[in-house]
Amino acid sequence: MSVVNIGLIGAGTVGCGVIKVLNQNSEIIENRTGIKLNLKTIADNDPLRKRPIRLPKKKLTKNAQDLINDESIDIVVELVGGTGIAKDFVMESIKNGKHVVTANKALLAHHGKTIFSEAAKKGVEIGFEASVGGGIPIIKSTQESFAANNILSIRGIMNGTSNYILSTMTEHGYEFDDVLKEAQEKGYAEADPSFDIDGVDAAHKLSILIMLSFGTFLNFDKIHVEGIRNISSLDIAYADELGYKIKLLAIAKSKEAGLEAGVYPTLVKKGTQLADVSGAFNAIYVVGDAVGPTMLYGMGAGMMPTASAVVSDIIGVAKHLSLGNTHPTTPRPYGSKGSSSLINMRETSTKYYLRFQAADIPGILGNITSCLGKNNISIESVIQKSRHLGGGDVPIVIMTHEAREEDLLLALKQIGRFKAITGKTSFIRIEEL
Amino acid sequence: MSVVNIGLIGAGTVGCGVIKVLNQNSEIIENRTGIKLNLKTIADNDPLRKRPIRLPKKKLTKNAQDLINDESIDIVVELVGGTGIAKDFVMESIKNGKHVVTANKALLAHHGKTIFSEAAKKGVEIGFEASVGGGIPIIKSTQESFAANNILSIRGIMNGTSNYILSTMTEHGYEFDDVLKEAQEKGYAEADPSFDIDGVDAAHKLSILIMLSFGTFLNFDKIHVEGIRNISSLDIAYADELGYKIKLLAIAKSKEAGLEAGVYPTLVKKGTQLADVSGAFNAIYVVGDAVGPTMLYGMGAGMMPTASAVVSDIIGVAKHLSLGNTHPTTPRPYGSKGSSSLINMRETSTKYYLRFQAADIPGILGNITSCLGKNNISIESVIQKSRHLGGGDVPIVIMTHEAREEDLLLALKQIGRFKAITGKTSFIRIEEL
Repeated sequence: MSVVNIGLIGAGTVGCGVIKVLNQNSEIIENRTGIKLNLKTIADNDPLRKRPIRLPKKKLTKNAQDLINDESIDIVVELVGGTGIAKDFVMESIKNGKHVVTANKALLAHHGKTIFSEAAKKGVEIGFEASVGGGIPIIKSTQESFAANNILSIRGIMNGTSNYILSTMTEHGYEFDDVLKEAQEKGYAEADPSFDIDGVDAAHKLSILIMLSFGTFLNFDKIHVEGIRNISSLDIAYADELGYKIKLLAIAKSKEAGLEAGVYPTLVKKGTQLADVSGAFNAIYVVGDAVGPTMLYGMGAGMMPTASAVVSDIIGVAKHLSLGNTHPTTPRPYGSKGSSSLINMRETSTKYYLRFQAADIPGILGNITSCLGKNNISIESVIQKSRHLGGGDVPIVIMTHEAREEDLLLALKQIGRFKAITGKTSFIRIEEL
Repeated sequence: MSVVNIGLIGAGTVGCGVIKVLNQNSEIIENRTGIKLNLKTIADNDPLRKRPIRLPKKKLTKNAQDLINDESIDIVVELVGGTGIAKDFVMESIKNGKHVVTANKALLAHHGKTIFSEAAKKGVEIGFEASVGGGIPIIKSTQESFAANNILSIRGIMNGTSNYILSTMTEHGYEFDDVLKEAQEKGYAEADPSFDIDGVDAAHKLSILIMLSFGTFLNFDKIHVEGIRNISSLDIAYADELGYKIKLLAIAKSKEAGLEAGVYPTLVKKGTQLADVSGAFNAIYVVGDAVGPTMLYGMGAGMMPTASAVVSDIIGVAKHLSLGNTHPTTPRPYGSKGSSSLINMRETSTKYYLRFQAADIPGILGNITSCLGKNNISIESVIQKSRHLGGGDVPIVIMTHEAREEDLLLALKQIGRFKAITGKTSFIRIEEL
């Protein structure tokens, strides 16, 4: 049986999952592939930290260079995370002719172009299935299974923490801050949750899928990113009444004028596949011109699901090695719809959900709707109920027909100057699936 | 740019889709891969038949041997279907050293072992993504993305025609025969629909997924197969009242004692991912020990979705060819859970939905429940309503707790002898996700 030697850098949650999967499923993997995956060295700068599994002491080192410079190591698994030292580890491994498997979305979102072009030069593979959607096979599907398609759109729930918070708010009517606090206590959200709840993590993942689907390495900073901090239980309740759920979606759409790309909260109609994705689950909805609408669903994070993706990548590289198929393909830019043709959000059009907080004085609804009308925004429906805000204020909820965002922002600015407007206006895009 | 030559046998619906995709997306495919896919020859025994696209006359032949024996052809695409002449075409192509891409589930279900072992000998690839779930990337996911997992279960809606019929019955309260007739008129169901509605097509697909997930080539005839002909609108209505939908599922589960495998109608709880798959869509729900629950959803049939899978396979082979990676892996048996350890349905356990039709006489419910009790079947809930069947009959609906099928069948036999039982008893397994 051929043996492939693996070095693992970073024995955190996912790293422990990889060790566990390699242990518990070694027999089935050997049966399937005829290959023995030998985890030779594990590098971690804090080997004594408390972990879900016991680390094999003999394989441990504090120095990642021990495995990066070990000639017998075929595959380096980078699970350090971040764009700092992890980048050095990956680049050094590539330079040493090692194949690399990583779950590091931030690294690929910011430095994918450099990493893939260096890997192509050195003829090594980069496995990165774990970087998007945990164990969901979205990378392989986008890169290979949908390769015959002109991809029209990608829309996904790509951050489990945000989806858990929104699902819990929806289910129990709680406010954002309370659910976040509870999630942090339970360990579902990080102490510093900003990458998750401000949409940055989802945007990292989106930029990787854009690279694979549209062949373009976007300048990450140009992607429009909004998080869920401003979503209130009131908006969730109104959305529910209107037949929608609020979901944080990562969205990329191919248009004549270029590429629309962004991460932001959206209203998604109840009963559609994405609306029904609850809790910490992820799902990515891809539409291709031939395949039509498809969706891949599963656990987007966590020790074992992410390890499933990491080890599947290890198996993929190991198979190629054992067969002598040593000419990998790496993602490369080919698309015309690059950052230069990224469409500004102001120039996009969609339907909108708007919630105004206004003093309950005669004519206020008329003033709002006529201001919207003057700015080319027509109205699909209005909910105005008797007072249920403090101090005599009323909420006015409006669903618009499709409108240009630039027009809408101008209208909202004008309406914001009305004396009767007493609070912040909610403005959430509606995404039709 | 490297050129890969393709021969296509069978210009039916999917064949026309393949021609269309290769035409309309040639530029994007070339950009992504650096390879030109050249459809050199198209073989069809009836080139004049009416088609959704015009066939390029210069490439046409009536004789498949023209392309099977053409040395310049790298990949033969078999879209003839069935287990007759299609098998000869595939085996001859393999013998001639050609890579084969096929959508033929029946062929692989019955002759997969022969075909894959011959392909391994000759060092050629067999692409068969299109054989299960149309454009849904379930083959690649099962074979590669979930390769690190001990697969615990596969449950899927794998036949679009059946799901369309059940969805329409559910939505409108129609009876099976009427919906089937309408589906045939609209072209959603074949003139001879038995492969679809009797579960055979789904069983073909299941046996392919079993081969990939459990490493075993089952004797196809040993898979338990039931279709949907006996599902009545009454059962759908009761299931709805109890919080369930009725779905035809293809199911494989890994158990201590062996493998449970079957295709049969099931009650699936509303609000679960599979219950929400409507119309002609397919979805396959896979649970692995590491990845947890995942689901892949999309259009399971049709010209363009199936063509998407066929062309993605062509691209896969073409990439390997252009890189000189000519040592393919083919599925091979490795599993211990083969046909010999296929668990008889009588030995399986699940919850059951039962509907009896009985004369409305005192004590009948007691007689039924005590007979069930004597056979070790305990009852979760009962619905007995006032008469709404003809001739003074009443329906009695019972949901059982988990019970052995052998016990249940014996109880049903005994109950069937009661004089008060006036009609056929419905008996549908409940599948918990």
